[in-house]
Amino acid sequence: MDRIPILKVGNCLLVTIQVDMHDQLALTLQEDLTAQIARYAARGVLIDISSLEIVDSFIGRMLANIAAMSRVLDAQTVLTGMQPAVAITLVELGMALPGIKTALNVERGMELLREFINQESAAEEGDGSEE
Amino acid sequence: MDRIPILKVGNCLLVTIQVDMHDQLALTLQEDLTAQIARYAARGVLIDISSLEIVDSFIGRMLANIAAMSRVLDAQTVLTGMQPAVAITLVELGMALPGIKTALNVERGMELLREFINQESAAEEGDGSEE
Repeated sequence: MDRIPILKVGNCLLVTIQVDMHDQLALTLQEDLTAQIARYAARGVLIDISSLEIVDSFIGRMLANIAAMSRVLDAQTVLTGMQPAVAITLVELGMALPGIKTALNVERGMELLREFINQESAAEEGDGSEE
Repeated sequence: MDRIPILKVGNCLLVTIQVDMHDQLALTLQEDLTAQIARYAARGVLIDISSLEIVDSFIGRMLANIAAMSRVLDAQTVLTGMQPAVAITLVELGMALPGIKTALNVERGMELLREFINQESAAEEGDGSEE
């Protein structure tokens, strides 16, 4: 298995991380994800990490990078399904993941993304109609 | 990694198969999936196999089993993202997966499930209003 599949759902992209990440896999994921955000003009990225039981600074950095890359491509990242132990480790590692929104499960994550996208569109329409 | 995560999206369950399946993992997936169909009263199961590059009779049988189990629990299974080589192998193995609907990608798979669920509800309402 040399790449993590990225699923397109509406105008969002969904990634489920199930395998242990190593350097090459993480790089491929970043490349694939940024390419697909651009290709589909995706507005949201949802990353489910419910099957990650342990996390290290490499994965933390990768998640932060993905969020930063998505943001400059105008897509919001939501991280879902984080296990309590992973949350503890991330904070202890000094990686509180600023700029990444989190949600308990995929369903709530999708709601969060929809709200964000609706707000953005409303703001854009507001800008257009105002003086 | 000892289990494949199952994501709940609306009244459907979404599974992305990314790793090579072995016996225990397949059994765990079947148990988890049937438990979650019952728990959430899910009406649809969507299995994405876009990252499977090869398939053998074990995986074919597992997919057929999952579809059969879901059906008796009143949920429809849709398989998405099958690669051409996998389709060729499955048919050559004599496993044309009867009873499993397929779709090119997750988005179309979701549409298919929604149509199926709407039809079912319409049929039930029809039954209710008739003599």
